[in-house]
Amino acid sequence: MVVDLRGFKSAKERRVGVEKELQIKLQNIASYAFDEAIVSSRNCENVIGAIHVPLGIAGPLKIINDQSYYLPLATTEGALVASVNRGCKAISLSGGATVYVENVGMTRGPVFKAKNLGTAMKAEIWIEENFKYLAKIAASTSSHLKLLKADYKVLGRNLFVRFYFDTQDAMGMNMVTIATEEMAKIIEQKTKATCVSLAGNFDIDKKPAWLNFILGRGKKVWAEVVLPKKVVGEILKTTPEKIAEVVERKVHLGSILSGSLGFNAHFANIIAAIFLATGQDPAHVVEGSLGVTDAEILENGDLYFSIYLPALMVGTVGGGTNLATQKEALSIMGVQNSKEFAEIIAGAVLAGELSLLASLAEGSLARAHERLGREKR
Amino acid sequence: MVVDLRGFKSAKERRVGVEKELQIKLQNIASYAFDEAIVSSRNCENVIGAIHVPLGIAGPLKIINDQSYYLPLATTEGALVASVNRGCKAISLSGGATVYVENVGMTRGPVFKAKNLGTAMKAEIWIEENFKYLAKIAASTSSHLKLLKADYKVLGRNLFVRFYFDTQDAMGMNMVTIATEEMAKIIEQKTKATCVSLAGNFDIDKKPAWLNFILGRGKKVWAEVVLPKKVVGEILKTTPEKIAEVVERKVHLGSILSGSLGFNAHFANIIAAIFLATGQDPAHVVEGSLGVTDAEILENGDLYFSIYLPALMVGTVGGGTNLATQKEALSIMGVQNSKEFAEIIAGAVLAGELSLLASLAEGSLARAHERLGREKR
Amino acid sequence: MVVDLRGFKSAKERRVGVEKELQIKLQNIASYAFDEAIVSSRNCENVIGAIHVPLGIAGPLKIINDQSYYLPLATTEGALVASVNRGCKAISLSGGATVYVENVGMTRGPVFKAKNLGTAMKAEIWIEENFKYLAKIAASTSSHLKLLKADYKVLGRNLFVRFYFDTQDAMGMNMVTIATEEMAKIIEQKTKATCVSLAGNFDIDKKPAWLNFILGRGKKVWAEVVLPKKVVGEILKTTPEKIAEVVERKVHLGSILSGSLGFNAHFANIIAAIFLATGQDPAHVVEGSLGVTDAEILENGDLYFSIYLPALMVGTVGGGTNLATQKEALSIMGVQNSKEFAEIIAGAVLAGELSLLASLAEGSLARAHERLGREKR
Amino acid sequence: MVVDLRGFKSAKERRVGVEKELQIKLQNIASYAFDEAIVSSRNCENVIGAIHVPLGIAGPLKIINDQSYYLPLATTEGALVASVNRGCKAISLSGGATVYVENVGMTRGPVFKAKNLGTAMKAEIWIEENFKYLAKIAASTSSHLKLLKADYKVLGRNLFVRFYFDTQDAMGMNMVTIATEEMAKIIEQKTKATCVSLAGNFDIDKKPAWLNFILGRGKKVWAEVVLPKKVVGEILKTTPEKIAEVVERKVHLGSILSGSLGFNAHFANIIAAIFLATGQDPAHVVEGSLGVTDAEILENGDLYFSIYLPALMVGTVGGGTNLATQKEALSIMGVQNSKEFAEIIAGAVLAGELSLLASLAEGSLARAHERLGREKR
Repeated sequence: MVVDLRGFKSAKERRVGVEKELQIKLQNIASYAFDEAIVSSRNCENVIGAIHVPLGIAGPLKIINDQSYYLPLATTEGALVASVNRGCKAISLSGGATVYVENVGMTRGPVFKAKNLGTAMKAEIWIEENFKYLAKIAASTSSHLKLLKADYKVLGRNLFVRFYFDTQDAMGMNMVTIATEEMAKIIEQKTKATCVSLAGNFDIDKKPAWLNFILGRGKKVWAEVVLPKKVVGEILKTTPEKIAEVVERKVHLGSILSGSLGFNAHFANIIAAIFLATGQDPAHVVEGSLGVTDAEILENGDLYFSIYLPALMVGTVGGGTNLATQKEALSIMGVQNSKEFAEIIAGAVLAGELSLLASLAEGSLARAHERLGREKR
Repeated sequence: MVVDLRGFKSAKERRVGVEKELQIKLQNIASYAFDEAIVSSRNCENVIGAIHVPLGIAGPLKIINDQSYYLPLATTEGALVASVNRGCKAISLSGGATVYVENVGMTRGPVFKAKNLGTAMKAEIWIEENFKYLAKIAASTSSHLKLLKADYKVLGRNLFVRFYFDTQDAMGMNMVTIATEEMAKIIEQKTKATCVSLAGNFDIDKKPAWLNFILGRGKKVWAEVVLPKKVVGEILKTTPEKIAEVVERKVHLGSILSGSLGFNAHFANIIAAIFLATGQDPAHVVEGSLGVTDAEILENGDLYFSIYLPALMVGTVGGGTNLATQKEALSIMGVQNSKEFAEIIAGAVLAGELSLLASLAEGSLARAHERLGREKR
Repeated sequence: MVVDLRGFKSAKERRVGVEKELQIKLQNIASYAFDEAIVSSRNCENVIGAIHVPLGIAGPLKIINDQSYYLPLATTEGALVASVNRGCKAISLSGGATVYVENVGMTRGPVFKAKNLGTAMKAEIWIEENFKYLAKIAASTSSHLKLLKADYKVLGRNLFVRFYFDTQDAMGMNMVTIATEEMAKIIEQKTKATCVSLAGNFDIDKKPAWLNFILGRGKKVWAEVVLPKKVVGEILKTTPEKIAEVVERKVHLGSILSGSLGFNAHFANIIAAIFLATGQDPAHVVEGSLGVTDAEILENGDLYFSIYLPALMVGTVGGGTNLATQKEALSIMGVQNSKEFAEIIAGAVLAGELSLLASLAEGSLARAHERLGREKR
Repeated sequence: MVVDLRGFKSAKERRVGVEKELQIKLQNIASYAFDEAIVSSRNCENVIGAIHVPLGIAGPLKIINDQSYYLPLATTEGALVASVNRGCKAISLSGGATVYVENVGMTRGPVFKAKNLGTAMKAEIWIEENFKYLAKIAASTSSHLKLLKADYKVLGRNLFVRFYFDTQDAMGMNMVTIATEEMAKIIEQKTKATCVSLAGNFDIDKKPAWLNFILGRGKKVWAEVVLPKKVVGEILKTTPEKIAEVVERKVHLGSILSGSLGFNAHFANIIAAIFLATGQDPAHVVEGSLGVTDAEILENGDLYFSIYLPALMVGTVGGGTNLATQKEALSIMGVQNSKEFAEIIAGAVLAGELSLLASLAEGSLARAHERLGREKR
């Protein structure tokens, strides 16, 4: 009874086919700004159109020793843009955020099956001893990719490998998958271990995991700001003490009691909104929800406020970054490369955390949601 | 030097202001299908336009005792729609997926500060003893909301509460925040405990956490299918044994070694694509990445394949579901309510897991990405 | 070449056999105060003698509304008894510890295999509907045992059950295993599900797990004390602020960064020493290492200090509690039942945490270990 | 009313004092084989006597390319020695266990407080750049100690360090504490960062933690054995398939659903019994409960069975190893050094896991406990 989509050659044909079949109208989905041919071959199969996500703008956000940035945020959740915006203001008035980025590298990791513990361990040794050779093979698959290092875990007769790659300004998942396949072939030949799966979950991609929290993945980012008491009072309508108390009781103790890997208020909201706006992989919001927010009262009564994300997965080329609207959103930040992009995200997360925690401290969260809410119908 | 966005009254004014200020062009972002006034008041502040995300379609997917569904998937990651599509075919040819949904309820949970352990415990007892009264207060804030139950944790002089609400067909975060504020006021009055934060991370929202894995949040969903050996061979190009081996070594052992809460291949990809298509909150991909995929070889050699998600956060009303394109995407599935929506997502996740794990078992992952890749430049 | 131990009938014969075979002397092991016949049939097979563990004494420790207790601590780790002793003194001088105990119950949990998701869920429903019947069966296996409740988890065609039992003053592992076997037989008959393992790790025994942290196992215990600034200075040689800082940076942040389930300084040391002294199962130190220590500065500058253990496994009868020396150690506390015993342990853990954290705050840890060290040779 | 223990000079005086005060008799505790003066100064303050723990013997256990060993097990839990013994027999009849040990090193890790993110990162760089200098300082505190490497984590203005040390044949906690204090003094001087706590829980000692699971602590150990179908049937009374099924459903899936870090049956029981027998620190049973048991059916139908422990903390000198009975227990194994000791423990854990899992597979667990139970009264 249902129509076979394979018969159709274009988004329009498919859309019309579905409309007929299901007796529905899809006229809004029909409008999009990207090139169907390119998108069909690179980003999405069986395209029928596009989803439009509202794009708001927050900022400017001052980053110390750098400049000020506007933040493009794609979201359907009322209050988020306003909240980040307020955080940006408080940070900028406090002199700006200090940010740090460390490039850990994209990971991909096969699982091999050997005859026993001993042969699995020998396979590990072979990889370590031939690392330069493997790096050459990896490099031969793309000029944008460099094999950096590997971690290993032998369990029974399984060898789990976690390769780390520098993928320049791309998030790089496809690159590293292709490179890993080439390396895995050689490893199979040389060690007689069998590659059971090119991705063995010791990578570990798009699943929350202590491995990524502890060892990092993609980029580690940090941001901090010292907020004078006065700015906290005037912009955030609360006190440093109240914010620090919410951080301690909610963000630390509450997360501890929940068995969480996210000791923060809402990293995921800010990450999701920037990722959507700029064509990042939204499933990497999972990694972006990991990390810690901290706050301290300094001796002079000011608020020291900081965030840390161990596994930020971003790129300024590849993936969805080439689509028309996403490219424009990236241009709003004017970023030159993925490191600068990560720095701005660190600042944005700092702003978002600060503002929501201040709302909670002040007691205005529910009112903000009532005013800017989404479930009115 | 940077322009103050507050001076602008419309998306166009704001967009033009940013274009001038930054010397960039945002013509593609300028096109969108939603109502600016509504979106500005409910979904996104400081709107300047929209991001267009390609929408692909997979299916039909047969759900046992129900019907067949097309799946709307918004993504910029090549190979995902094709992969889910293949999974749908294998499942449908095997007679369809069996799915189950349990409504756990949306959670919101304040943290209170009492004088000491004893008064914190007394506050807990007060809440338990006055639960019907609190439920009445909660119900008075919305006709779509019902307080179901609560969990508690006393730590030092802190009382953490986790209220569970039935929010009908809405995801319901705003509703439950407003209801919780009203209840918290009463609890403060009656128990003399202070509400430090309306959301105390014992809820726990948009952070990966064992609490949500163990107790559930939103909806728990399960899906299973029995795949004849022949279907596995013809559609998935591999064998039941190879798929079961990848599940064991990668999905179970690899995730164990990674300290993960996601014992699956890529739940997050399918969840993200459906969430984006249908106006769900993309930060809830975090909860959607939790869960377990399992596989077994049955005595007759067929493959028993199943998935379980403990914390699926979805709604068919509210949030981004009212936007024009998102509403159309929902209409493709023709869902009547959030329970049916959750069932289809369970089936979609089953299809996505099956297909990727088969690719890994067969060894074709890298080739698929090479063909449908995203980093070509 | 090696001797077969089965030929021997007594500890002495076995010991002499081993001495001859290995050309060693075991004269110290030969001395013990327990009844060999009883121990051989209940506590330890193939007995050859005993290990002597030094027993120290700390206290008195004042528990509010109760009395003062000496604490028997069996340990070979220098500085532990002295440290707990100092904590007892500080607490007692501050008016004593307040303690709370909640009996969660001992757990045992089989895993059943059903035909599919649906039959696994039906088996769960059968258990729920016939709970009183099962409770009667459980009660019939021991007059000291009462089935309290159950938690369930269906995963694929597996049904995991977690039965909770009141085992009176026994830790009760054997009791609940026997009762669970009887219940499992009935469940198999009635539901056609197969019991794959009587203990399915959803219990979960002697493995660190969020399930036990979140839901509790055995007994949950809390303790708190308010220490005047003066007592902190005079007895603990530091300040409330310094202790609170160590708690925040080490116990909370350090544990967070380590992916820990133990947000404390050294619960395990105190638990191990009391467990050894009183004949508890030392493998339950694993559960005893779970939990949280917290500290706050009160408005008047005093130190509010508290501990929480979600899974304390103790008994005052059964197991090793009947052995001569262990019985005497229990008599030092004069406990009437397992609840009172758990209360004293809560106080002891409070004392141990307080003292070590004060040492760390003061900077004297290394010096204490240098003085009371164990590796001098 | 309570007597002040400080007035007493000997175990006897203290014991008599307590007996009088509490009107109890402690005659069994009064008997012990250790030297009171040495124990008082090194192992236990306020000594009043000793606890006698029954010592059983299991084995012989054949280790491949090595020899056969008897295992000393101190326990009060009936059935444990018998169970390990049966595992030893099955392994020995199968040709013996293969074992591997990797020395990761004992960890100790201070937390420093700097002015901000930048100065905390600079302190990390200073430590890295002056690592040889610090290693020299560490080495100057003990001729048995060598600083190996360090891991770092910056969070806000905190720098967490995790130093790894080779401590030769000692477990080495005291040594590394003393060495770390000397290094911390220098780091404070040179970097202006303040050492808040000598142990910052990034070490992380005696608390279950993913950090230790993932990076290892003390020694990592592995063991494996291939059991012919016939041995499984004759000695373990079950089949390879049944054991593999219990491993999959209980040990893997059950632990996954419990949020566990112990994917095993009862590592902790065997570790606790050997630790007690040989004078190890029983609080390190916590680390010893971490790890994974795995099983597979080989093509010929034999059972491949393996265990992995990432964090085994053992020594053959120092701590309680010098006490008379503990020294004798060590002599039963005739171990030359801590590496050989760790190998035997790996084999013992393999034996214990195999036997209990076979009991569960066969369905005889409850009966064994009924026969060898502890709660009969």
